Amino acid sequence: MNKEINVKLVIRMLGSLLLSEATALLLVFFLSFVFKESDGYYFLITAGVCYLIGLLGILIGRNALQEMGKREGSLVVTLAWVIFSLFGALPFFISKSIPSYTDAFFETISGFTTTGATILNNIEELSHTMLFWRSFTHWMGGLGIIVISLALLPMFGTSGAQLFAAEASGPTKDKIHPKITETAKRLFLIYFLLTFAETILLRIGGMNWFDAVCHSFATIATGGFSTKQNSIAYWNSPFIQYIIILFMILAGVNFSLYYFGFKNKFKKIKENEELRYYLIVLFSFAIIIFISLINFNQPVSFHKIENSWRDALFTVTALMTTTGFTTVDYMQWVPFTWIILLIVMLTGASAGSTSGAIKMIRIVISFKFCYYEFKRLIHPNAVVPVRYSGHLVQEDVITRVLVFVLLYLTVVIFGILILCMSGVGFMESIGGLITCLGGVGPGLGLVGPAGNFAYLPVFSKWFLSFIMLLGRLELFTVLVLFTPAFWKK
Amino acid sequence: MNKEINVKLVIRMLGSLLLSEATALLLVFFLSFVFKESDGYYFLITAGVCYLIGLLGILIGRNALQEMGKREGSLVVTLAWVIFSLFGALPFFISKSIPSYTDAFFETISGFTTTGATILNNIEELSHTMLFWRSFTHWMGGLGIIVISLALLPMFGTSGAQLFAAEASGPTKDKIHPKITETAKRLFLIYFLLTFAETILLRIGGMNWFDAVCHSFATIATGGFSTKQNSIAYWNSPFIQYIIILFMILAGVNFSLYYFGFKNKFKKIKENEELRYYLIVLFSFAIIIFISLINFNQPVSFHKIENSWRDALFTVTALMTTTGFTTVDYMQWVPFTWIILLIVMLTGASAGSTSGAIKMIRIVISFKFCYYEFKRLIHPNAVVPVRYSGHLVQEDVITRVLVFVLLYLTVVIFGILILCMSGVGFMESIGGLITCLGGVGPGLGLVGPAGNFAYLPVFSKWFLSFIMLLGRLELFTVLVLFTPAFWKK
Repeated sequence: MNKEINVKLVIRMLGSLLLSEATALLLVFFLSFVFKESDGYYFLITAGVCYLIGLLGILIGRNALQEMGKREGSLVVTLAWVIFSLFGALPFFISKSIPSYTDAFFETISGFTTTGATILNNIEELSHTMLFWRSFTHWMGGLGIIVISLALLPMFGTSGAQLFAAEASGPTKDKIHPKITETAKRLFLIYFLLTFAETILLRIGGMNWFDAVCHSFATIATGGFSTKQNSIAYWNSPFIQYIIILFMILAGVNFSLYYFGFKNKFKKIKENEELRYYLIVLFSFAIIIFISLINFNQPVSFHKIENSWRDALFTVTALMTTTGFTTVDYMQWVPFTWIILLIVMLTGASAGSTSGAIKMIRIVISFKFCYYEFKRLIHPNAVVPVRYSGHLVQEDVITRVLVFVLLYLTVVIFGILILCMSGVGFMESIGGLITCLGGVGPGLGLVGPAGNFAYLPVFSKWFLSFIMLLGRLELFTVLVLFTPAFWKK
Repeated sequence: MNKEINVKLVIRMLGSLLLSEATALLLVFFLSFVFKESDGYYFLITAGVCYLIGLLGILIGRNALQEMGKREGSLVVTLAWVIFSLFGALPFFISKSIPSYTDAFFETISGFTTTGATILNNIEELSHTMLFWRSFTHWMGGLGIIVISLALLPMFGTSGAQLFAAEASGPTKDKIHPKITETAKRLFLIYFLLTFAETILLRIGGMNWFDAVCHSFATIATGGFSTKQNSIAYWNSPFIQYIIILFMILAGVNFSLYYFGFKNKFKKIKENEELRYYLIVLFSFAIIIFISLINFNQPVSFHKIENSWRDALFTVTALMTTTGFTTVDYMQWVPFTWIILLIVMLTGASAGSTSGAIKMIRIVISFKFCYYEFKRLIHPNAVVPVRYSGHLVQEDVITRVLVFVLLYLTVVIFGILILCMSGVGFMESIGGLITCLGGVGPGLGLVGPAGNFAYLPVFSKWFLSFIMLLGRLELFTVLVLFTPAFWKK
């Protein structure tokens, strides 16, 4: 293991990835003609820069050894997100759509990490070309994370995903499996179909094509960027809102399960405990908030009841799937609902989906193990193994899950401290950190649904950009880069 | 193991314990003559009731089998705290010093759990007799927890204490060791000497004997009840405040270390990692807060600097050792200091001390294990065992530590939710829950140093009473009682 890091290979891979970003930028340039806007040239320039640097990277790494280990994987994945954001921010910056580079970078990494936290005070001010790129970063980021979490991360053994990934993807212990390309193709198909279906349904619901496509990008990637300042509240249509709820829920499901569905293996889906708990938690919390929203002192009408239920369900779904769309300013609700919202922002939806945060599978395994420890306290000799979806969970998987959850909460606590030290308020630090680490979008207080991240100090914006990356790549991938052991020969 | 619970023995033990509470109450009755107050009769009545019920318990359990297992241990310990508080609240209640029984119970369990959270709006209103009893509950509770954590809890394997308890106490795997009485005597001596030394020093510093004794009780037990509404801010004497800082720090040290000190085994103390990290964390955070308190726009004088340093050090020490005395209203400080204070309220001081919360040893082991997992991610075949104070930490101890920390944080999160649902504000729920679970005292906002818990709804008070008990008995002891496995034959 203790060989030198294959830097040349890392550079070559990053070069190739940069070419794909250049292609995406070029696509947006062509689309600008459809929108009849002149902004497209900023994308052409950026695409040119990306092609050049990308080719340079490939040139430098042309005779690299093919050997690819964990450390190279960590480096490529982390740097890919950073580089994509660094270059992806350029069109916003050079067009002066977002005059500060810090802000442009924040907005772009918030896009690629599918967070959806924004620094824009007036979203509708931006051109269609810019807004399309903004939503497209979500879609690319979401696709990237699906491929990585179901094909690459299990290699590190850090994700609960390996529990069902066995059939969908084929990771080996140390090297990337050749099957990754095939798996990636399948995942891409599912991802594309979901996006396509939602776009059609939103169009039927009355959105124009542009908004329908942009919102589908943001939904399936569980991103949350909207093309409207008021997010989904802009469309006061129950149909549109229920469609988005449905697709947010679908985007929070492990993508392996769709694959099983295609293969008619419905038993696997029925047995899946993560899916079950995900839906139970989602609807339970939605019901609690729904009840708190009903004003029993006023005459209740069906319209009001339906409205409260839709707001409650939409908000819990949006925050638990870490999408972050909003239909209502939940800061107007009673404070205990904020705690519920913070809790679902911490749990997130399923592993192997585009959703962020801890993920239900880890929560379920942790709780099961805690209960198991209780049993052992009373009956030390009884062997009560932890079972998950009918399978036995291995000791080292449990330990890693516990370490992950603990590390996540540690990052939350110290992240809040650093954010607060950088000059952000008490409630804003709590909400802002949890929402960015989980890849959600809106936080509490001034960074809540009615506000945004524009007013934050420069340092806080860079810090939160780092936090978004950390959360998106499930902590370990990024944090190992900061350990001396990683760089030792 | 799966025998029936030895209920008779539990009743007999609780009966004996009630007799000791009766004796304590009787002592306060006699003291009331010294104070020349008529309140003593309420203590005489309560003592009578306790003697009667205690004797009844001993009578019922007179022919109980001597067999004492873990389950009986859990029951006795948990119920002891509940019963002590139920009866200990009577003098406050029947004398109408605290007219509501809910409030009286809250105040008493806050005393016995060495928390120090108060519902009193005007402490000086109470008679000396009442105030003495209030401080005395701290002292009894602190002594109880030292004996339990160094002699009884290791039996459950839940405490990090067993790591050094080997020499100080002698717990076996399942039964209480006969050596417990001897260990308890030694611990009592250390506890008494510390209290005595502080009393003398506070008297020298200018406190009267009554205040000196009461504050020593509250310091060594890391309780935090003061005889003054303004807590330690009442004495604007640097000497008194530094003495209290010193003894709070001493009370947060594992009591086994004093025993080693008596035996001249200073190497053991020097090697002790918990002590080292405890002091490092304490002083680091004190320094950060100290810097934030200096106003660089104004001319700095030695007096101001010393005052800021004393306030910072006092506050961090008071909250980290979970004592909860105050010299300043930290709600007037910048918000990030509150996050630091919340963090130290979560960590607590050392295991085997009277301090509450998670304890440094668990934090240190968790962090070490997380780092070890990182190393394993990169070098999967390398065996890097977790070492603590020069000893190897066993796998199952690590797992239990991780489960404890996780469970603690889960209780924090859901506790905040329940508290907030019961009608307490956002900031008050966060501060109130963390302070009660850790056994600290003051929280944030309305339950901060300038406020108290009087305004809380009745349900919230009972809930926080439960939380104080849960925290004091290190979660497991109480929570196992709520598992079906505990009650199964």
